[in-house]
Amino acid sequence: MTQEPQQFASDNYAGICPAAWAAMDEANRGYVPAYGEDPWTQRASDSFRTLFETDCEVFFAFNGTAANSLALAALCQSYHSVICSSSAHVETDECGAPEFFSNGSKLLVAQTEGGKLTPEAVRALATGRSDIHFPKPRAVTITQPTETGQVYSLDEIRALSAICRELGLRLHMDGARFANACAALGCSPAEMTWRSGVDVLCFGGTKNGMAAGEAILFFDHALAVDFDYRCKQAGQLASKMRFLAAPWVGMLESGVWLSNAAHGNDCARRLATAIADLPGIEPMFPVEANAVFLRAPEPVLEGLRARGWRFYTFIGGGARFMFAWDADPARVDALAGDLRAAVQEAQAGVTLAA
Amino acid sequence: MTQEPQQFASDNYAGICPAAWAAMDEANRGYVPAYGEDPWTQRASDSFRTLFETDCEVFFAFNGTAANSLALAALCQSYHSVICSSSAHVETDECGAPEFFSNGSKLLVAQTEGGKLTPEAVRALATGRSDIHFPKPRAVTITQPTETGQVYSLDEIRALSAICRELGLRLHMDGARFANACAALGCSPAEMTWRSGVDVLCFGGTKNGMAAGEAILFFDHALAVDFDYRCKQAGQLASKMRFLAAPWVGMLESGVWLSNAAHGNDCARRLATAIADLPGIEPMFPVEANAVFLRAPEPVLEGLRARGWRFYTFIGGGARFMFAWDADPARVDALAGDLRAAVQEAQAGVTLAA
Amino acid sequence: MTQEPQQFASDNYAGICPAAWAAMDEANRGYVPAYGEDPWTQRASDSFRTLFETDCEVFFAFNGTAANSLALAALCQSYHSVICSSSAHVETDECGAPEFFSNGSKLLVAQTEGGKLTPEAVRALATGRSDIHFPKPRAVTITQPTETGQVYSLDEIRALSAICRELGLRLHMDGARFANACAALGCSPAEMTWRSGVDVLCFGGTKNGMAAGEAILFFDHALAVDFDYRCKQAGQLASKMRFLAAPWVGMLESGVWLSNAAHGNDCARRLATAIADLPGIEPMFPVEANAVFLRAPEPVLEGLRARGWRFYTFIGGGARFMFAWDADPARVDALAGDLRAAVQEAQAGVTLAA
Amino acid sequence: MTQEPQQFASDNYAGICPAAWAAMDEANRGYVPAYGEDPWTQRASDSFRTLFETDCEVFFAFNGTAANSLALAALCQSYHSVICSSSAHVETDECGAPEFFSNGSKLLVAQTEGGKLTPEAVRALATGRSDIHFPKPRAVTITQPTETGQVYSLDEIRALSAICRELGLRLHMDGARFANACAALGCSPAEMTWRSGVDVLCFGGTKNGMAAGEAILFFDHALAVDFDYRCKQAGQLASKMRFLAAPWVGMLESGVWLSNAAHGNDCARRLATAIADLPGIEPMFPVEANAVFLRAPEPVLEGLRARGWRFYTFIGGGARFMFAWDADPARVDALAGDLRAAVQEAQAGVTLAA
Repeated sequence: MTQEPQQFASDNYAGICPAAWAAMDEANRGYVPAYGEDPWTQRASDSFRTLFETDCEVFFAFNGTAANSLALAALCQSYHSVICSSSAHVETDECGAPEFFSNGSKLLVAQTEGGKLTPEAVRALATGRSDIHFPKPRAVTITQPTETGQVYSLDEIRALSAICRELGLRLHMDGARFANACAALGCSPAEMTWRSGVDVLCFGGTKNGMAAGEAILFFDHALAVDFDYRCKQAGQLASKMRFLAAPWVGMLESGVWLSNAAHGNDCARRLATAIADLPGIEPMFPVEANAVFLRAPEPVLEGLRARGWRFYTFIGGGARFMFAWDADPARVDALAGDLRAAVQEAQAGVTLAA
Repeated sequence: MTQEPQQFASDNYAGICPAAWAAMDEANRGYVPAYGEDPWTQRASDSFRTLFETDCEVFFAFNGTAANSLALAALCQSYHSVICSSSAHVETDECGAPEFFSNGSKLLVAQTEGGKLTPEAVRALATGRSDIHFPKPRAVTITQPTETGQVYSLDEIRALSAICRELGLRLHMDGARFANACAALGCSPAEMTWRSGVDVLCFGGTKNGMAAGEAILFFDHALAVDFDYRCKQAGQLASKMRFLAAPWVGMLESGVWLSNAAHGNDCARRLATAIADLPGIEPMFPVEANAVFLRAPEPVLEGLRARGWRFYTFIGGGARFMFAWDADPARVDALAGDLRAAVQEAQAGVTLAA
Repeated sequence: MTQEPQQFASDNYAGICPAAWAAMDEANRGYVPAYGEDPWTQRASDSFRTLFETDCEVFFAFNGTAANSLALAALCQSYHSVICSSSAHVETDECGAPEFFSNGSKLLVAQTEGGKLTPEAVRALATGRSDIHFPKPRAVTITQPTETGQVYSLDEIRALSAICRELGLRLHMDGARFANACAALGCSPAEMTWRSGVDVLCFGGTKNGMAAGEAILFFDHALAVDFDYRCKQAGQLASKMRFLAAPWVGMLESGVWLSNAAHGNDCARRLATAIADLPGIEPMFPVEANAVFLRAPEPVLEGLRARGWRFYTFIGGGARFMFAWDADPARVDALAGDLRAAVQEAQAGVTLAA
Repeated sequence: MTQEPQQFASDNYAGICPAAWAAMDEANRGYVPAYGEDPWTQRASDSFRTLFETDCEVFFAFNGTAANSLALAALCQSYHSVICSSSAHVETDECGAPEFFSNGSKLLVAQTEGGKLTPEAVRALATGRSDIHFPKPRAVTITQPTETGQVYSLDEIRALSAICRELGLRLHMDGARFANACAALGCSPAEMTWRSGVDVLCFGGTKNGMAAGEAILFFDHALAVDFDYRCKQAGQLASKMRFLAAPWVGMLESGVWLSNAAHGNDCARRLATAIADLPGIEPMFPVEANAVFLRAPEPVLEGLRARGWRFYTFIGGGARFMFAWDADPARVDALAGDLRAAVQEAQAGVTLAA
């Protein structure tokens, strides 16, 4: 695996970062109580409260699908609905988990440009029906950054939370790559969440450099009542909880959560910059976090593949490149170089053919 | 934590064993595909097939509650029921998870001595009702070893699977401490499961020395159809699956899965033997795996607590001691000694009081 | 069907009473809006408010299983539990419907004498566990009258609601035969429900003389929020609602709801009185509503069957006789006479055999 | 209610037809066993088998939402998905019932012209994703006739069932107005269903002239295994089942099921014909069953309302008129006349304004 051709196919392909690993190692000493009654869980929870500058409620789940679904189920009854973007992970990649955990809450999908929800789209979906034959809207979920790597500005979040307040909806943030959004905006976690009106945040640890694990933060205590029971019943309570909690301690206390994310973002920008002048190659979306989606002629993509690169093209046929916490800048440059070569080759081929 | 007074309170209080840790460390190199498409997951699955001497279907879940619930949900529809012992973990300690994952399957609880199901109890519950006003029995689940540390013999398992076959029921084995049962009986995993008629096994890794993770083994391929979707929807598909899978590789290939368990069992027997002559102290259950439940006068339990020991008394008021993969024999001896001292003290106290 | 041998096997075997029928007939004129926006639904709801002397929330469901399950689901989340008697219909005869509608709420079953819950039993079940590994108790359900025909006194209901208030539990009353309880106690519906601390009542119409239909009454408005959506989603919103509502109008406004029930109760007492002197025959339970359960030697039961009578023996082997709104007193007398003859015959048989 | 201005707003506004009523009346004699063990249920089931010329499995549910949801839940597990048209009742008007009953099965919605699914749309949705991150397609549901009153031809149904067979999908038909489709095509129920590859049919009784009740017909016996338990658990088993069954006997044996529907269809065509020449008024959809959707200038709609007519405009702003089993042709003519007058008035208004 010296070349690691799939390195940029997904930020889930990366391993555990040193800070998370070291904390797990340290946690792996002696006996501690199970099910979250241990000092590491307490310390991780407190680290979140410190980072978010508020006395929020903190829970840990094994993965993002569960975290999002449990959070939404806490906001909704089965006959309620959740407004999301058509490209939201909860809609496209969780195999009906939100519907399963909530016992039937429907996702109301907005077709919006670039995958961002807008107040207008929320209003349209939330007020389009008000009869009992259609699930009553109760929550809005946004992905920050979006699946295609755009970051909601603070103003955009505030506008969404304002319409949520107006319409009696709760605002959930799917932060599978929350750290990348913080790094991108340069704002504090508090600013991006509760100070902007977010009610619940799922903060992703896996893509941020951990083996597994997401944190669910409730900024409104009332929403968290009995949430520990909900996690337990849904198979999301770890017995040896310290191993879910300790990595957070390692990452939050050291600031690695943010530097890991900033590094991924930097690599994305590095690629985008390096290829900005390439004819026929254009980013499908603004490069704001750790993702680059490139629209490129098929011969160019073929040329990349021929040079060993692996990538997904599931969104609009564009090539997706994701940059993890440990993306290698030299490999980014190599990718840019190969892309340039592939473009030239394709042009030559066209010329020849002509 | 030098004394670790809670060391024997639960086998969930122990950490990660060296074999599991080393495998995670080795797995934490480079980039590999996510969601189980990596070499470690393949290798762990193959290790299970080798160990069980059959081409079973292998899936990985984060914890035992999820593994049991998903397996039972695969056997039942919501209007079916599952026969279990009144002390089964699915009934007493999973917060309604089986009912949640199955969307309502009812547990039919047998009151049996020592927590073991019997063919008679299964027959009584399975044939007591046959009208549509009561959930139709569809599966039987046994815990091997039981919550109180008894081990079903191969003959007992075969008798249970025979009645299951006769009555059209499927047999599920909750093996949260499956390795301890193997070590206790000295039989092969194959003998204890599919060769004795078990349809599905949940093999516990957490108590066996891992950070987290259980394997679900289907010996009947038909039962495993689309089970990967079920895991995904229920929030049990790890993106960085290698970290759930690699520890299994480390433990199965080395044989540590069995030696870890044998060590726990040995410590339990060591305690039981050391205190066999103590007046007024008696095991509540035969000591067959890694658990010792002691019935003791309250002053004796108080004496133990005064000496710093921590333990649960949730079953019949007896003191539970669980021995993990790394239980310290010197501490076992210390516990035995303190118990002896507490007995003498209590006797002296009684004499004084008289 | 001149003899109608199964007449007393179940009070579900009876048809529609004249008052309900006439109201349906009257309702079957012209066009009215669907889904409860019609005048009949309004009038039926108001009739309930008048009868119960309070501005309660009123909903209509098709049958008792749905009514109970929907009401309990409104009180509980999936990780909560409901305390009930071991003979409660929700536990024994609804095929797991409460678990299904609630997505997993567990029933905690009290083994109590005569099928009545007691404050002590509630306290024991509600406080026995308080850890997150077991579903949190959230509601208590009582059947009034019980499945075996006993009626909770007002004092008993008040004692139960007092412990519910103390422990933060909600009190649900399964009133499949609510009218029979009112007739038995001679108290007002208000006294038996909200004035005694009941939060939600399911008032059974089917056994009271209707074709189908139960009313769900919330005395606490907060519990009824969005309950109309819950009914709709669960397939319990009738499009031609007038036909579920009108029979209630016919029965409530006329008082037939009470006289129907009183008649059933009278017939039960009539049988009990007529056979009080029969040797070897004894009621298994006090005859307080419209049920008589008789413990009788098997030869006597055989004698009854030989004379054409049909009855169930599913509770403790005793013969159950249920008296519907239109039970024929002459047939009650005939049953008593045949029972007397069967006893004599059995005695003679014994004498002969001896 | 002499004018009955809302007469054509919905075919749910009509009452019970004489044939259904008479059968209920006849059924309301004497005592019969409950829960479908009565002669009427047997006879209704047999009537369906006769009408459909096959030994299908027959079940009865209280309403269409439940019937559709139960049928789909029998075809799917929670992690499966159901392909439907964007205008399907299961998607737009059942408040998430399919998701609730199935515990999460997702509806995959095809945007098709006129609300009819096509083989191409089915193929696109069924093959678009094949990874475990998205619910696996398992069933297709079509509404016959569609919500806007179009009827699938036999060829269209056969083409859909062919693609279903090819892709391993089951075909469900929502026949809330099934009789109207039979009347429209002039084909036999068998031809339109199992002979064309339909696996399960929900045959609507309510709109056909009953008080309540739908029949669920499985043409593949394997799909119906334990379906009686499913109905019971979901609160859809009537205790006094004869009153759900008898109306079917009355309607099927007499042929009224078909003549009722034909009458509704006739009235729709009568309206369409009468207004065909009106300028600015056009049917939004072909008038093939008992629905007419008219696109008309707002002043015209206002003119209709001013003349007392009530109608919905929830689909594309068009005015919906539905013709029930007892629609009054004189009123149809009156509506046509008022529409003509409203058009003229609007034209005059425009002229005046100009």
